[in-house]
Amino acid sequence: MDMITDNYVGFSTSAKGNSSFQAFSPLNNQNIPGDFTRATAEEFETALTLAQKAFPVYSALPVEDRAKFLDAIADEIMNLGDTLLERCVLESGLPLGRITGERGRTCGQLKLFAQVLREGSWVDARIDKAQPDRQPIPKSDIRRMLVPIGPVAVYGASNFPLAFSTAGGDTASALASGCPVIVKSHSSHPGTNALVTTAIITAAKKTGMPDGVFSSLYLDHEHAIKLVEHPAIKAVGFTGSQSIGMTLFNAAVNRPEPIPVYAEMSSINPVVLMENILKSKKDTIATALTGSVNLGVGQFCTNPGLILLEDNETSKNFLSAFAEEFKKSVPATMLNKSIHKACISGVKELFEKDNVSLVATADLSANQEKTEAQPVAFSISADDFMKDKSLSEEVFGPVTLFVLCKGISQIVEVLESLQGQLTATIHAEKEDERNLQPIVNVISQKAGRLIYGGYPTGVEVCHSMVHGGPFPATSNANSTSVGTAAILRFVRPLAYQDFPEAFLPEALKNSNPLGIMRLVDGVLTRDKI
Amino acid sequence: MDMITDNYVGFSTSAKGNSSFQAFSPLNNQNIPGDFTRATAEEFETALTLAQKAFPVYSALPVEDRAKFLDAIADEIMNLGDTLLERCVLESGLPLGRITGERGRTCGQLKLFAQVLREGSWVDARIDKAQPDRQPIPKSDIRRMLVPIGPVAVYGASNFPLAFSTAGGDTASALASGCPVIVKSHSSHPGTNALVTTAIITAAKKTGMPDGVFSSLYLDHEHAIKLVEHPAIKAVGFTGSQSIGMTLFNAAVNRPEPIPVYAEMSSINPVVLMENILKSKKDTIATALTGSVNLGVGQFCTNPGLILLEDNETSKNFLSAFAEEFKKSVPATMLNKSIHKACISGVKELFEKDNVSLVATADLSANQEKTEAQPVAFSISADDFMKDKSLSEEVFGPVTLFVLCKGISQIVEVLESLQGQLTATIHAEKEDERNLQPIVNVISQKAGRLIYGGYPTGVEVCHSMVHGGPFPATSNANSTSVGTAAILRFVRPLAYQDFPEAFLPEALKNSNPLGIMRLVDGVLTRDKI
Repeated sequence: MDMITDNYVGFSTSAKGNSSFQAFSPLNNQNIPGDFTRATAEEFETALTLAQKAFPVYSALPVEDRAKFLDAIADEIMNLGDTLLERCVLESGLPLGRITGERGRTCGQLKLFAQVLREGSWVDARIDKAQPDRQPIPKSDIRRMLVPIGPVAVYGASNFPLAFSTAGGDTASALASGCPVIVKSHSSHPGTNALVTTAIITAAKKTGMPDGVFSSLYLDHEHAIKLVEHPAIKAVGFTGSQSIGMTLFNAAVNRPEPIPVYAEMSSINPVVLMENILKSKKDTIATALTGSVNLGVGQFCTNPGLILLEDNETSKNFLSAFAEEFKKSVPATMLNKSIHKACISGVKELFEKDNVSLVATADLSANQEKTEAQPVAFSISADDFMKDKSLSEEVFGPVTLFVLCKGISQIVEVLESLQGQLTATIHAEKEDERNLQPIVNVISQKAGRLIYGGYPTGVEVCHSMVHGGPFPATSNANSTSVGTAAILRFVRPLAYQDFPEAFLPEALKNSNPLGIMRLVDGVLTRDKI
Repeated sequence: MDMITDNYVGFSTSAKGNSSFQAFSPLNNQNIPGDFTRATAEEFETALTLAQKAFPVYSALPVEDRAKFLDAIADEIMNLGDTLLERCVLESGLPLGRITGERGRTCGQLKLFAQVLREGSWVDARIDKAQPDRQPIPKSDIRRMLVPIGPVAVYGASNFPLAFSTAGGDTASALASGCPVIVKSHSSHPGTNALVTTAIITAAKKTGMPDGVFSSLYLDHEHAIKLVEHPAIKAVGFTGSQSIGMTLFNAAVNRPEPIPVYAEMSSINPVVLMENILKSKKDTIATALTGSVNLGVGQFCTNPGLILLEDNETSKNFLSAFAEEFKKSVPATMLNKSIHKACISGVKELFEKDNVSLVATADLSANQEKTEAQPVAFSISADDFMKDKSLSEEVFGPVTLFVLCKGISQIVEVLESLQGQLTATIHAEKEDERNLQPIVNVISQKAGRLIYGGYPTGVEVCHSMVHGGPFPATSNANSTSVGTAAILRFVRPLAYQDFPEAFLPEALKNSNPLGIMRLVDGVLTRDKI
């Protein structure tokens, strides 16, 4: 398949602008041939008008049609075959195996959302039947369900060129909810975006979706902000840095009509290693933790950036074992120049701090020509850690910091000092459990996902996943960006009072034609009325 | 029961400040004896610290304990007897019958939330079981549920001194979710607040709740804003004007850690009257609509402020009938001086517009000494209405505006020109139904609740109620402030990955000890695992 480097303004390709850019391969530090043209103000406006017009049409389609559209996107992405995989590897510097896996995840989540639509109960239908004879006043028949809110702006993420970009989790959940999507393509992987966009548009046409249900634009900084500010846009999905996330958030809340921004931003994902498990599983943890820190060259939102343990003989032994293992880490190519630069500068700052010690670094040296990161692990005392707020900021890359605590109460104290997190992890043996409750209590307040005996990297796409958490992990803790509950971000409840059956949506009709679970007079049931 | 005019800083009464105020009765334009002392900075800080400390204790209580607390609040409010009713009438100027009804509603919603807690399924528990043998990587056991977010600031509303104030919907839903509450008492009814606070504190002590689960403060303007800005506060519930709502919203989004504000603000609640029903039910509608405009002296968020109908003989006949009925309206006392003043000024502005005509006003004249409002109905052409944005702003009081449209397409056009609304209403006969779909389509986008053949005033407290809607009806369309779904405002999802049974909350344990509905591997079931 030939790659189209134009914007997709709805179903139409368009490249009227005179500003263009090329993709860059971090693998060899070179531009990749092919000019991507940034959208003009007119193309931008047209895409938004199309989305606005598509919304009432798209949102009113039978859910089965929406489900078929999602399935078709997954199929069309698979049809792109090696072209997509190769382009994505070239643009992201990530290995083929990882990208192949990410493609599977991307298609899997589209199909999972299609399943959720077909099952249908996610709309939280509630019916309170009329009581015309109630005293002192009659009770009306009231029915409500969740309905889509309108066009959604999705910002492609650098670190998941497939699973959190053009057809990624934000797009899949917004399209599933019934909202048209406008993607702001990430500048690090425009070719990947181009291919995936073609797949989405092909799927939309094949399944009879309205023009405007999806657009994909290459935007300059000014229009990237204007996208949030545009009155047609009703919500924003974003994964990336806290600074860009908060720029979008501020633009959204300062609109004449404020809109929600679901920005997944910053997390250092504390891991607590309890004493007894460091005795029994020292080597297993040293190996697995090294793997987790290096996974995806440390460019996961859930990268374990902070590891808490008691300062004693056991932890000293563990740190020696960890250092031996960590030295074998292999430097690898980061996603782009600016992420690479930020990682180098973050590591430099840690090296320069007097109270921070080096635990280990990879024996092999990073090749700067290949935009590689140097894996590094540091340590610090808990007292010093808590004195320096900058140490709890994320260094995006294969970097972690051990915090040596004076007993379990100081572990709790360090956890309490942290901001909101995507994840928090505990490793413990049976004998450690009697000391765990205070730790579980504090991480329950701090994080969106608590992990026991595992590693935070690797976010399962399923119904129960929470990839979210208190600020600054996200801008909206009452949500998840991974898993099927992500659909709940792009809806609002709508009630119908005493409405004639003919004008009620399927989900609320007496006969329950969709067979969904509904709360009828306070009782969950699939029964008809 | 003696009334305590101090702040309640948790369980303790406290009045260390030197700034105080008296309640004012709009019924006779006079102050009511009794000095309420505004909280000092120290009392303010103590209340917040107590709320923060109470949160982990309160949120960890068995749900049955929280349910008992809510039930006990309702019982203690009833125990206040006539003292509460009389004080509330005096402070609000609302008639005894209305206040008695509002007390029933307030207690009813507390008990309804207690039922929701006992049923338990509202926590949206989801379990995806482990698949240790899955290829290429094993699947972890992941479980999630909704958990409370932390202390909530509740701002008492002027227009519902019981149902949307100290122990009103925001407080009930926040306490139900597991969040401590700090109420900023409304300055129009401090005595009502004092009595209800005593009831809440008594209930809290009797049911063994932690000190700090509830505080009630008299705050100056500065501290009313500081309450939103305080790091201990994690969400805000508010009902009132758009200007104050947006002041709180702006304070909340500009915090270092932004928090959600659930502000229910402004709505003119369009009502569409179709031609055939104006023929068949002219007099019934004239009477009922007059009643709805005057209900609560027009001081309902759902007051029908805009009535759309076609400009033809039928509507002329209807308007005559309406005018005859509306003239019989009885001027009544408004809630306070500033609301009264704003109503007079809003009506004056309408009188001064050349293109606005008077339809009718009450034959009786309002008595200014009793802070009474003059019921007035105006009319305007749709063309003129759409040219003047100021006409779609709410005039809080017994005031409505008929908009005469050139056919149904112009009705749709006027509806499209409106901002977000709490409600939208249609009155239609069978013969009108073939013309309704475009109207239903547009109001589905604009409002939180669609009413057929009824009146927007009267908001049923039930599972399916949506008292919300797109901006500026609320600051957050993905929510309701009335009905049991209001509990979903004060929670966030929390996932547990591979957690030992002992550390899992009841709702997520294998045996499903609470017997709640859960989504297990994508299937809704009450079965154990």
